[in-house]
Amino acid sequence: MKQSRRGQVDPFIVMDVMEAARKAEAAGRRVIHMEVGQPSTPAPLAARQALAAGLDHPLGYTVALGLPALRQGIAALYRRWYGLDLDPARVIVTSGSSGAFILAFSALFDAGDRVALGEPGYPSYRQILRAMSIQPVGIPTRAEDRYQPRPQDLPQAQGLILASPGNPSGTVLRRDELAALTARAAELGMSVISDEIYHGLDYGAGFHTALEVTDDVFVINSFSKYFSMTGWRVGWMVVPPDMIRTVERLAQNMFICPPHASQVAALAALDCIPEAEANLTVYAENRRLMLERLPQMGFTRIAPPEGAFYIYADVSDLTGDSLAFAAEILEGAGVAVTPGLDFDPHRGAGTLRFSYAGSTADIAEGLDRLAAFMAVR
Amino acid sequence: MKQSRRGQVDPFIVMDVMEAARKAEAAGRRVIHMEVGQPSTPAPLAARQALAAGLDHPLGYTVALGLPALRQGIAALYRRWYGLDLDPARVIVTSGSSGAFILAFSALFDAGDRVALGEPGYPSYRQILRAMSIQPVGIPTRAEDRYQPRPQDLPQAQGLILASPGNPSGTVLRRDELAALTARAAELGMSVISDEIYHGLDYGAGFHTALEVTDDVFVINSFSKYFSMTGWRVGWMVVPPDMIRTVERLAQNMFICPPHASQVAALAALDCIPEAEANLTVYAENRRLMLERLPQMGFTRIAPPEGAFYIYADVSDLTGDSLAFAAEILEGAGVAVTPGLDFDPHRGAGTLRFSYAGSTADIAEGLDRLAAFMAVR
Repeated sequence: MKQSRRGQVDPFIVMDVMEAARKAEAAGRRVIHMEVGQPSTPAPLAARQALAAGLDHPLGYTVALGLPALRQGIAALYRRWYGLDLDPARVIVTSGSSGAFILAFSALFDAGDRVALGEPGYPSYRQILRAMSIQPVGIPTRAEDRYQPRPQDLPQAQGLILASPGNPSGTVLRRDELAALTARAAELGMSVISDEIYHGLDYGAGFHTALEVTDDVFVINSFSKYFSMTGWRVGWMVVPPDMIRTVERLAQNMFICPPHASQVAALAALDCIPEAEANLTVYAENRRLMLERLPQMGFTRIAPPEGAFYIYADVSDLTGDSLAFAAEILEGAGVAVTPGLDFDPHRGAGTLRFSYAGSTADIAEGLDRLAAFMAVR
Repeated sequence: MKQSRRGQVDPFIVMDVMEAARKAEAAGRRVIHMEVGQPSTPAPLAARQALAAGLDHPLGYTVALGLPALRQGIAALYRRWYGLDLDPARVIVTSGSSGAFILAFSALFDAGDRVALGEPGYPSYRQILRAMSIQPVGIPTRAEDRYQPRPQDLPQAQGLILASPGNPSGTVLRRDELAALTARAAELGMSVISDEIYHGLDYGAGFHTALEVTDDVFVINSFSKYFSMTGWRVGWMVVPPDMIRTVERLAQNMFICPPHASQVAALAALDCIPEAEANLTVYAENRRLMLERLPQMGFTRIAPPEGAFYIYADVSDLTGDSLAFAAEILEGAGVAVTPGLDFDPHRGAGTLRFSYAGSTADIAEGLDRLAAFMAVR
């Protein structure tokens, strides 16, 4: 069958690593997962209880922009986290942050437009853009800038994607950096999308939403990470007032609505802060272990992991082929890690991403295995 | 903020009707819903029980193409319904049929391509295509052809969307018609997408999948209608073998995975045939009432409603403005119906769609109200 050009996107390499790990497990091997970008914990208990109690209801289509109570609850989160008053009408519930990106790109960019993004970065930005006939324009970032773009780095383009905390870097944009980047983007006529999916997962650096410095931005977030609900596919987007109706029409047609059952669970999850904070305490301990032990075994060039649950290591002194190195680590240590090529098509052959979203016992065992593997390599 | 051209899609008018009905209900009015394209019943009991039992599991990301057991179960449905042996590897679980359309259009068509579709038809085909910079090309169909396109009607285009049973018409393509249409499309070099979302909802005419006549087709279906799971957002797509990997890469990046909880429920729903058939018995009785009473009150020009749960009426002898007529019916009779403009931008000003997916008591009351309204109009 004739295939489109836009459909020839790159594979999401981390998913192929997961499949290789699954095969090893099917063959009886125990694998420690440092490749997956998701918590090992389920959705908060009260979220699951709310859904269980709601299962007798029809759970048909909701309105396209999401349950009104959920939109209000998300708006309230902006007061709690940032001290912002946010009109719930600007909050759009989406089918995961993935759905939010599809809606944002549709609303903002035409075929042939250019959208800039920092390298390294979340690989699907680039692939979703390509699938929608939009041209991704990579901005190489520097370790000394915490792998975040600077205002003077912005190219001529119609759009800019910011990510703080970044994936894979875990680094956070300060408030003044957000202000400078969005101001420069406005000068250049760029529409800005701020990916804030890891907000809440913070180890002391604090975190700022782009909404603190401008209303002329699409902010994307999700219940996947802080609220531990990856597979539920429920995220959200905050849009400028003049974009609500456009996004609503797109959402009606492209998604009808986000999954109703997941919305019911997400609404209850908003009240599960103690459980989310308990998960964060586990990540903080995992991070402490990682930062203590990875350098001892030779992973010394690490971006400051201020948020999220990732460590991005420059391993170019150890390998020129991160894909082969990750396969070697899976084979030799039984630890799944993600080759940097997913995040940086240019320099990723010399980098790896370690996720520490698992249990502390698993992370400790993974570190033991990695240390033993590296000692004899 | 600067908006894209592609993002300026038309509103989904039925959603605006739903909102007007909701407002009437908030003001204390009882409204009979003949506008919504969804069952009033919940997901099958065993599906909800399976999810309730699974809520203690993490329900993280599944693989992008969906739970293997669910793909196998869907393949088995093709044996039960059509006597076909289908390789489960060709079955792709999607975030509703909406997600399937986004994936199919991405995999098959580039910006600027033309995709043909029958008018009247499901409005979101047209809007999703536009949001992806693909040009919809309407094929006006005739009442005497049961509002389905004929092979000689196909224009020069890169793609063709077929729908059987059609929405809004409810009419079904015969096996020989599917064969002739797909053969002609192949001659013209068109990639064919067959929307079979209403399969199972059949009142004696039988139904055939396009896979009975060709493997060179994308078939789209969903748990929304026959299995009564609209808000769960879980559908599927059957693709040619040489398209699996392309669609997998797109799905990994654009959706990550369909909602996990919904997949758990859908897997159990596949065994809930008696409950689905009981719902069908209700629709059959509703359809009988509609066909008996609508003509008596003046709705005489009706497409043969062979499947789905819709009746499409030519009301051009009663009005030249179906939007105003629908508003008049909501105001005067307290019955919500859908103006035909959603389905046919050219002739829809003279048509209405009635859904009979509700309970028989509601349908009977709606018909009483409509009769009283039409008698004094």
